Amino acid sequence: VLDKTYTIRATSNIAFIKYWGRRNHELNLPYNSSISMTLDENLSATTSVEFSNSFKEDMLIIDGKRQDLNFQRSEKASYLRRALEHARKTAGLNAHALVVSENNFPSGTGLASSAAGAAALSLAIVKALDLKIDTREISKIARQVSGSGCRSLHGGIVKWHRGTHHDGSDSFAEQLFDTSYWPELIDLVAIVTTSSKKVSSSEGHTLTPRTSRLYDLRPKIAEAEAKKAETAIRNRDFNLLAEIVMRDSNNLHAVCLDSWPPIIYLNDVSRAIIYAIHELNENYGKNVAAYTFDAGANAHIITTQKHRAAVEGTLSSINGIKRVLYSKQGNGPRLLSEGKSLINDEVIRHTGIYKY
Amino acid sequence: VLDKTYTIRATSNIAFIKYWGRRNHELNLPYNSSISMTLDENLSATTSVEFSNSFKEDMLIIDGKRQDLNFQRSEKASYLRRALEHARKTAGLNAHALVVSENNFPSGTGLASSAAGAAALSLAIVKALDLKIDTREISKIARQVSGSGCRSLHGGIVKWHRGTHHDGSDSFAEQLFDTSYWPELIDLVAIVTTSSKKVSSSEGHTLTPRTSRLYDLRPKIAEAEAKKAETAIRNRDFNLLAEIVMRDSNNLHAVCLDSWPPIIYLNDVSRAIIYAIHELNENYGKNVAAYTFDAGANAHIITTQKHRAAVEGTLSSINGIKRVLYSKQGNGPRLLSEGKSLINDEVIRHTGIYKY
Repeated sequence: VLDKTYTIRATSNIAFIKYWGRRNHELNLPYNSSISMTLDENLSATTSVEFSNSFKEDMLIIDGKRQDLNFQRSEKASYLRRALEHARKTAGLNAHALVVSENNFPSGTGLASSAAGAAALSLAIVKALDLKIDTREISKIARQVSGSGCRSLHGGIVKWHRGTHHDGSDSFAEQLFDTSYWPELIDLVAIVTTSSKKVSSSEGHTLTPRTSRLYDLRPKIAEAEAKKAETAIRNRDFNLLAEIVMRDSNNLHAVCLDSWPPIIYLNDVSRAIIYAIHELNENYGKNVAAYTFDAGANAHIITTQKHRAAVEGTLSSINGIKRVLYSKQGNGPRLLSEGKSLINDEVIRHTGIYKY
Repeated sequence: VLDKTYTIRATSNIAFIKYWGRRNHELNLPYNSSISMTLDENLSATTSVEFSNSFKEDMLIIDGKRQDLNFQRSEKASYLRRALEHARKTAGLNAHALVVSENNFPSGTGLASSAAGAAALSLAIVKALDLKIDTREISKIARQVSGSGCRSLHGGIVKWHRGTHHDGSDSFAEQLFDTSYWPELIDLVAIVTTSSKKVSSSEGHTLTPRTSRLYDLRPKIAEAEAKKAETAIRNRDFNLLAEIVMRDSNNLHAVCLDSWPPIIYLNDVSRAIIYAIHELNENYGKNVAAYTFDAGANAHIITTQKHRAAVEGTLSSINGIKRVLYSKQGNGPRLLSEGKSLINDEVIRHTGIYKY
């Protein structure tokens, strides 16, 4: 399988119950389980990987920019190094890898591009080295590249179990429901800003548990809410699910604000969206939409096909929303044909990765 | 003392450790103790009271607007009714009262105009009826008019003890330090908005303890921080006090955001102020200023005389600040001469309060 390129397209996911705070930094182990919906290919990352004995070093290129793998403070770099080492050890190989990745949505905006990228990368490495490991094992690789990345390994509704073991062996993602269980569920992403956030989620995962006094309650709350969310989805009870989703988002941003120094992702446009969704739901006399915010000001509005137009109408009345992306539930990552690879002779020549 | 007008001027206060959430709605008993600095007369309320057997009813006029005392949902009205009844019972009188009050700062903006008003009103009633009750008793009247009002009965640095008794008998305010202890301490109030807030603090006091799951920890945190704040002030340790003040503000707004529906007082300008103060402190290598927000977007910047210019410079660079008020520590309420009364024959005639 050396000198052959493998390309995976994986998609982003939006958490209904969010991951915030890691109990183990090295292994990326969370304080609480999380539940997410995998999005469709409107929000995806495509990653090509090739291993070769002719390569003089590992190289990672994201959206055309070469990443410095020796930069100690880069988490991307250190996670990739670890994933490659893990994979090479398992395969019994020493070949270096060229990894080329492209996102089709703006990164650093709280749209979880890293999740899609991590899932695509992990699967591409596993494919490229033809590793005989099961999905749980791949899940653990993806988790170490980017926590929420393990959730993007599956389609539909996915749960990332926090696990209790110190070595992370029981912290993995699995599908709860495939896309056919509740296909009406959709996500409308209101893009509020495309600029990078002040505090990365990676920093937040460490800062908040360490400094927020309110955080002490967050893991217990989120764990209980994850169970409730699972039941709400099983019963296709949108009214209940929506409340759980909105409250979990608020809970997360509350512990962010309580961190020291404070982390504030929501802005005036986010707030206008929050109020507008509450008003929309009040008008219906039940919840027909739910807002949820990751580490950024952009809003994900979870709703059903039936109320898509009503939500779009509501969003169109809010100043400051740049555009609204639409996503159904996605089926999870897939292998693209060789012709779709981001790696070709031209690219390889351009990188200067060859030994001679 | 009937048919004679008494006028009290009381000033606002800014809490270092805030009151948020009442354990008893009727008596206005808080879940935690709070600590505040009384402001000077740049932020004051002036209240004149006259009792007369010639009045056919009780009447309350705030900033020229007559308040409907029979409006059941008005807390101002119900608290005034209770304060008057309490006072009349103590004095053994049946005379009705005319109460005229004026604020010199915009109300409903998160600047605690109600605190100044409550303190002025309570003291004016006590004076007008010549009630022989001690400060603790007056404190309890003021507390029932507006919780934070009891803190405005004293000058300098004031502590409102939460108390533990069901009847509120041990929940009162007392002075910790007079204005001469640390006179350098000042407040710069950045007015961001003069419009009314969406959720009144009175509603928030009920909503947050009832719905925020994180609130469970707030009383314990605030109680501990109040003790730390007291020590920091005793040691005139501004660096420590500033951190306590900023974190308590963030903690309060975090439990607000975690309420259901969420309460969001901070806006983009508030956030810009928060970041700017953190940056200012970083540049100094220690805390020289602290932001704190009540139930609104307006920022109080606690600093010392020495750093007033630096803080004003920082604030002047932020778009969206309408003006900056300056306040030293205030000495507490005072009785104004009869000539300064807001009640005169003209006013009385205009109200039509006379029986004949």
